[in-house]
Amino acid sequence: MIKPDSYFKVTYGLYLVTARLGEQKVGYVANTVFQVTSSPARFGVSCSKDNFSTSIIERSGSFAFSVLGERASTGLIGDFGYRSGREIDKFRGVNYFIGQTGSPIITDSAIAWFECRTVETLDLGSHLLMIGEVIASDVLNDQIKPLTYQYYRDVLKGFSPKNAPTYVDKSLLETNSPGMLSESEIWQCSLCHYAYETDKGDPISGIDPGTRFQDLPDDWCCPICGADKSQFFKD
Amino acid sequence: MIKPDSYFKVTYGLYLVTARLGEQKVGYVANTVFQVTSSPARFGVSCSKDNFSTSIIERSGSFAFSVLGERASTGLIGDFGYRSGREIDKFRGVNYFIGQTGSPIITDSAIAWFECRTVETLDLGSHLLMIGEVIASDVLNDQIKPLTYQYYRDVLKGFSPKNAPTYVDKSLLETNSPGMLSESEIWQCSLCHYAYETDKGDPISGIDPGTRFQDLPDDWCCPICGADKSQFFKD
Repeated sequence: MIKPDSYFKVTYGLYLVTARLGEQKVGYVANTVFQVTSSPARFGVSCSKDNFSTSIIERSGSFAFSVLGERASTGLIGDFGYRSGREIDKFRGVNYFIGQTGSPIITDSAIAWFECRTVETLDLGSHLLMIGEVIASDVLNDQIKPLTYQYYRDVLKGFSPKNAPTYVDKSLLETNSPGMLSESEIWQCSLCHYAYETDKGDPISGIDPGTRFQDLPDDWCCPICGADKSQFFKD
Repeated sequence: MIKPDSYFKVTYGLYLVTARLGEQKVGYVANTVFQVTSSPARFGVSCSKDNFSTSIIERSGSFAFSVLGERASTGLIGDFGYRSGREIDKFRGVNYFIGQTGSPIITDSAIAWFECRTVETLDLGSHLLMIGEVIASDVLNDQIKPLTYQYYRDVLKGFSPKNAPTYVDKSLLETNSPGMLSESEIWQCSLCHYAYETDKGDPISGIDPGTRFQDLPDDWCCPICGADKSQFFKD
C-alpha cells in the first residue's frame, strides 16, 4: 500500500531552474534539485518532458538554479511555476545576469545561485534527470532562510503543478483536517490548484478566516500564481 | 568562482536508507533522497561507492528509506551515519520490520517510510545514483516535523561525513561568525567532526555556553555520534 500523504514528509527546497539557447531564455520552479556527488560537485535536476524549458535545458548543455528564500515573491513563483514560456516572457521585469555558460541567473527573491554544465542526462520516461557539474556559485543573502517545499505548502498553501516529479493527486489525500467546518467552502484556482478555504482565509493577503469567496475584494488574486477571482471554481 | 557556503542553502531532509541481502542488513544516513518522477513514483538516492551499504543496496535490487523526524535520536544518527556496518550491528536494539522486498524498514525516530525496487543505477564516479520505484509507503507520525539537514547543522551542529554527496571541506568555509570570541575554544570529534565550541556549549545535552571542554562531565559524549570525550581533539 502506498500512502499519498507520505510524500509530504520528504523535504525539498524551491528553486528557479534557468537556461538559455540563443535568444530563448527559459526558467521554471523546481523542488527536486539535489547534490549527487561532492568532488567534483554535481547536482541532479528532474525536468518534465512536457515542460517547454526542458528541451532548451537539454539542448543548451548547461543550466543554473537560484535558491529561493522564504520571502520569495509569489508572483515570481506564479509566473515561473504555473505559466509557460511559450505564452509569456517570464524574465520581463525580473533581475538576472548572464553567467559563464550563457545561462540567465535570477537574483530576485534568491538567497544563493549555482551554475552547472550538464554532464549526463538520464531518461526516466516522463522526466529527464539532468546531472550538472557546478562551475560557479554564490550566496546572495545569508539572513533569509531557504524557502522549503513544506513552508510553501503549509504557509503559502501551494501545490506542485501536474508536471512536477512530486505531483500528488489531491483526490487521493485524506481530508480529515480537524479545523474544517462543514459550512466551510473551498474555491480552487484553475491555474495552480491553490485552494481558498473560507474558514482559513488568506493570511498572506490579509484576508481574515471566515471571509466568503464572494466577499473577497475584486482585486484579490491567487496568492500563489496571481490569477484573478474569475479563474476560481467552487470545489 | 564557487562559494562553498552556497551549498548550505540547498534544502534536504535526513533519511535512513536501508537494504538487505541474505542475512546482511545495511543502513546509513542520507540527505540526498528525492523524487524524480510522479507516475510511477520514483526516488533517487545517491550512494557513495566507499560505503559498505552501497554494494548491498546495488546487489539486493531494492531499498527502503525512513524519514527522520526532528526529535530523531542522535545515537541512531551516530550509528547509522558515522559507523560502518563492517564494525557494528547497526540494527541491534533498533525497531524495524521487513518489507515486501525483504528490506528492513526502521520505525524508530521515523515519521514516514518508503520501500522501493531499483529500476536504474547511474554510475557517477564516486557515487551510484539508484533510482527506485515506490512499491509501498506509510506515515508513522503526523505531528513531528521532518528533520531537515539545516536543522541538523544549525541546531544539532552536525556535518556531512566524508562520503556524503554534500560533504564540504570545513577549511574552505568562511569563519566570520560574529559570536565567536577569540578566547573561545573548539574541540572536534574525530569520528563525526562535530565541533564543541566553548562559547556555545551543548544545549542538546544541557551544557551551558562558556563551559570549558575539561569541565564537561566525564560521561558527556558527542551529541551527534555518541563518541566519548577521549575521541575529541583541540581544533
